Amino acid sequence: MATYEHTIKVFDDEIGQLRGLIAQMGGLAEQAIGDAIEALKRHDLETAAEIVRNDKKIDQLEVQAEELAVRIIALRAPLADDLRDVVAALKIAGVIERIADYAKNIAKRTPLIDSHSEIEPLSVLPAMAALAIEMVHDVLDAFAARDPEAAQQVCARDRAVDDFYNSLFRVLVTHMMENPATIGQVTHLLFIAKNLERIGDHATNIAEMVYFAATGTHMAERDRGAFVTRQGE
Amino acid sequence: MATYEHTIKVFDDEIGQLRGLIAQMGGLAEQAIGDAIEALKRHDLETAAEIVRNDKKIDQLEVQAEELAVRIIALRAPLADDLRDVVAALKIAGVIERIADYAKNIAKRTPLIDSHSEIEPLSVLPAMAALAIEMVHDVLDAFAARDPEAAQQVCARDRAVDDFYNSLFRVLVTHMMENPATIGQVTHLLFIAKNLERIGDHATNIAEMVYFAATGTHMAERDRGAFVTRQGE
Repeated sequence: MATYEHTIKVFDDEIGQLRGLIAQMGGLAEQAIGDAIEALKRHDLETAAEIVRNDKKIDQLEVQAEELAVRIIALRAPLADDLRDVVAALKIAGVIERIADYAKNIAKRTPLIDSHSEIEPLSVLPAMAALAIEMVHDVLDAFAARDPEAAQQVCARDRAVDDFYNSLFRVLVTHMMENPATIGQVTHLLFIAKNLERIGDHATNIAEMVYFAATGTHMAERDRGAFVTRQGE
Repeated sequence: MATYEHTIKVFDDEIGQLRGLIAQMGGLAEQAIGDAIEALKRHDLETAAEIVRNDKKIDQLEVQAEELAVRIIALRAPLADDLRDVVAALKIAGVIERIADYAKNIAKRTPLIDSHSEIEPLSVLPAMAALAIEMVHDVLDAFAARDPEAAQQVCARDRAVDDFYNSLFRVLVTHMMENPATIGQVTHLLFIAKNLERIGDHATNIAEMVYFAATGTHMAERDRGAFVTRQGE
């Protein structure tokens, strides 16, 4: 019995450690998105370069999370709920790493946007970014709290990010038509908007994983926010 | 001894089954990319819609591969080389699913490109797609053969796909400047070119996983083809 309790204790410690790594990755990813948009707005090339460098840290945390998750599965052979939890953590680490990559990509484009450009959509991106960051934040809270309802609510919000993107897409295309000289720069803004839209998609993916880990069933299609025919997707 | 041999036999069977799933996913993903570009060229909306539908099949295979990999890790507790192999398969399944998503995204954009458009870069995309498909094909061959050198060769080719993309990016931006009326459509071509470039990146990621699984060491930075400052990335 003592050994059994010890095993459970070790397992709980390891799961806690794994969840800690995910939380740490999530915090860094959120910050990277916010900083990237802020650096873009202020044409702050130093911060942009720092975001690119810091991405390595998130990559390393992902490697750690993966190793820990695999070790837990191999050594503790967790069953049902616990196994779903560990596999979810393993996958979520991978998705956060990709979310951070999108932030890095935004940072990499910062030097390519003219510091004096007064492209109006540039002022809309921060609001879209705030929405995407909120989704990432809330879905990781849902994961920490093992809360399937909170995960569903995050999915519902992906629609708003998509609408933002679709409207920005139209605005940017119109802007290019009216100001052909800015086309090179505006295409970068288009990719940046796309990156934020993809961050929303990835938050939705995490929400599905959280829901499955917590309930053992897949989220109903209509709650997922994955629509087949979105303009410009 | 008989039981030990039996265990090894079961393990080998399961690994074989896992590798079979990966090969099947890879074949479908390669076909989806090729078909998507072909459908785009011919403005074949029916084929494009079919590619979008068929993507579900790849998603299902990924779920199967993941379940099998987790089962192998939990029940067989493989060590060192074998564990690396199973974890690589688990991750590669995830990357192939994303590669197929890019093909799906190309298919989704097909209805948005005018059937009568004579945008010249449209004729360059098939060559770029062929290169990307070849990378995916060869890296999965490298995985099947557990061949780290072949994996390295795939990485070296990512540079060519990037060069293709960068040159297309410039051509498309110029085209937009000279023909503002086509901007809406050309932005979709820009995203399609970007998707192909990302497929090359993902093939490179798989190559790194194959290399690590086969050797236990990470590929040297210079062989990876991951360059920090690419225009338009």
